[in-house]
Amino acid sequence: MITLQNPLDMHIHLREGEILKSVLAFSAKYFSACLAMPNLKIPLTDTNKVLNYKKEIQSLANSLNCDDFTPIMSMYINESLTKDELIKAKKAGIKILKLYPKGATTGSENGVEEILDQKTLEIFEIAENFDFILSIHGETNGFSLDREFEFGEIFKQIAINFPKLKIIMEHLSDRRSIDLLHKYNNLFATITLHHITMSLDDVLGKGLNPHHFCKPILKTPKDRNALLELALSGDEKVSFGSDSAPHLQSNKLKQNGAAGIFSAPILLPKLCEIFEKYNKLDNLQKFISDNAMKIYDLKNIPNKKITLIKETSRIQDSIKIDNDCIIPFLANEELSWKIKEN
Amino acid sequence: MITLQNPLDMHIHLREGEILKSVLAFSAKYFSACLAMPNLKIPLTDTNKVLNYKKEIQSLANSLNCDDFTPIMSMYINESLTKDELIKAKKAGIKILKLYPKGATTGSENGVEEILDQKTLEIFEIAENFDFILSIHGETNGFSLDREFEFGEIFKQIAINFPKLKIIMEHLSDRRSIDLLHKYNNLFATITLHHITMSLDDVLGKGLNPHHFCKPILKTPKDRNALLELALSGDEKVSFGSDSAPHLQSNKLKQNGAAGIFSAPILLPKLCEIFEKYNKLDNLQKFISDNAMKIYDLKNIPNKKITLIKETSRIQDSIKIDNDCIIPFLANEELSWKIKEN
Repeated sequence: MITLQNPLDMHIHLREGEILKSVLAFSAKYFSACLAMPNLKIPLTDTNKVLNYKKEIQSLANSLNCDDFTPIMSMYINESLTKDELIKAKKAGIKILKLYPKGATTGSENGVEEILDQKTLEIFEIAENFDFILSIHGETNGFSLDREFEFGEIFKQIAINFPKLKIIMEHLSDRRSIDLLHKYNNLFATITLHHITMSLDDVLGKGLNPHHFCKPILKTPKDRNALLELALSGDEKVSFGSDSAPHLQSNKLKQNGAAGIFSAPILLPKLCEIFEKYNKLDNLQKFISDNAMKIYDLKNIPNKKITLIKETSRIQDSIKIDNDCIIPFLANEELSWKIKEN
Repeated sequence: MITLQNPLDMHIHLREGEILKSVLAFSAKYFSACLAMPNLKIPLTDTNKVLNYKKEIQSLANSLNCDDFTPIMSMYINESLTKDELIKAKKAGIKILKLYPKGATTGSENGVEEILDQKTLEIFEIAENFDFILSIHGETNGFSLDREFEFGEIFKQIAINFPKLKIIMEHLSDRRSIDLLHKYNNLFATITLHHITMSLDDVLGKGLNPHHFCKPILKTPKDRNALLELALSGDEKVSFGSDSAPHLQSNKLKQNGAAGIFSAPILLPKLCEIFEKYNKLDNLQKFISDNAMKIYDLKNIPNKKITLIKETSRIQDSIKIDNDCIIPFLANEELSWKIKEN
């Protein structure tokens, strides 16, 4: 048995509308807070859009009897973002800015084309002065397996030029990023469940598995192992961010299929399984909450305890949505830990 | 305009039944001969099965008015293959033995588990003594991107221990294989169209494209470029083998989707386009025919000339089969060369 204090998921796609309704419970019931990504169909590029989305999530969470759930909001950086809008956001309590390089992943069409150009640097400067946290999907448009590594140079430039700006390297996938993370004081990272449990072989090693297709793409077993080791260590620069990303099956199983793994239904039990396997259960509290509390300076999160017990259960095979469905990560497989319901 | 003498495709999956009927014309009309792979639903593990399949292909080719088309047959190596059976095969004119490591690709379930064990070495010895050619899908069961490289050690052992046995490294995909190919006199190779035109990015660099999923998996742009250079050079150790592998769309667009690219409908025009682009049209005859004639010691192939002209055409979007279809490589895209029909 283990009891986790205030579990946090610092990178999640909750979507909107019907999908939000179908997936929110997995986060709202078992996490204290989740950092909701702003790449909706209409991206959250201003304060009002962010606040409206927050209301949508909160009202739904309340209807699920999860009024102790806190959605942490982020605003989508695009090139027309003004200083006034940033000040407005700050006053409204938004403190995360999310940067997508244009075209890097699902919903990044409105992202930034030239990350180190004058306009973006101005945004970074305001962000630094107003104590925003800069969350970055760090991939170039180079060869898939090198995109994160190549982006390292940009992380480095931002870290050096904005030394008081906290920068989050989202969903680390390449072991070559780890040195960089440790080199600059103002670089931090999130790590997903899937990048510490799978490699590219799980996408295409046997048949093609679209449900394991994600961005950044899963890399080599060596990358997986290095990231697993980093997560297990409880390193204070690293928070858990699932990057759980629900897509309708019809959008996964097609030509030009969508990238994203829907891991929300299994996060805490699976993490217990892994940390126990490597005899690091003692570090799970840091990875799942304590580190993020400090990095993101989280306050006023209502206290929430989640207890997990060693008991076998089977992961559901799908979540129906109208005539379609969402397939969860590891559908139909067994978990050896289970959340103890109150 | 270019006229190719006796184009040869030294590695193709023609399948059986309905699919064979739908795809044979692309090969039988425009190629002099094709080396038909033996990994059918019931694998061609003995002489009778191979000869029956040959009859099926020939009779269908005749019905297409392609009696100048020669199917070159191969027999599937499995551990119960006997010397008597090999002698019978040889007498029946079968001279290619195909080795699949168990589990390496579509239809390899009956392949060889331990390639360098006593039983397989005996088969190689008989093969050497009876002048068979040994065609190998050279992949280990390691990490996808290293499988061909890791198999290099096995190629090396076979090449050294059976110096008179001609060994074909099928569908080269890794630039690290090229040194090996040149190091041993008895190693030869085939190269596909897709491995010289695409990289892993074409499978998963943007959305997921199941129609570009194949084994061996497409690798880095550097690998693609090195293989392209090798093909363009007209190197006498290298033949063209399309590895065209038709699968029903329903088997591609699903979880655990099938590996294989159906390139048969576009091979000669696309090769002209590429060789012209790099100003190497003079070498195409070697790559598409002359090298294979020598490597496989092909005789009695009826003379066939295929003329291609520079004229734009659009690749068909699909080939219907009952309620399903097969999607050709580069469906709906334009070709700048076209086969001149007689």
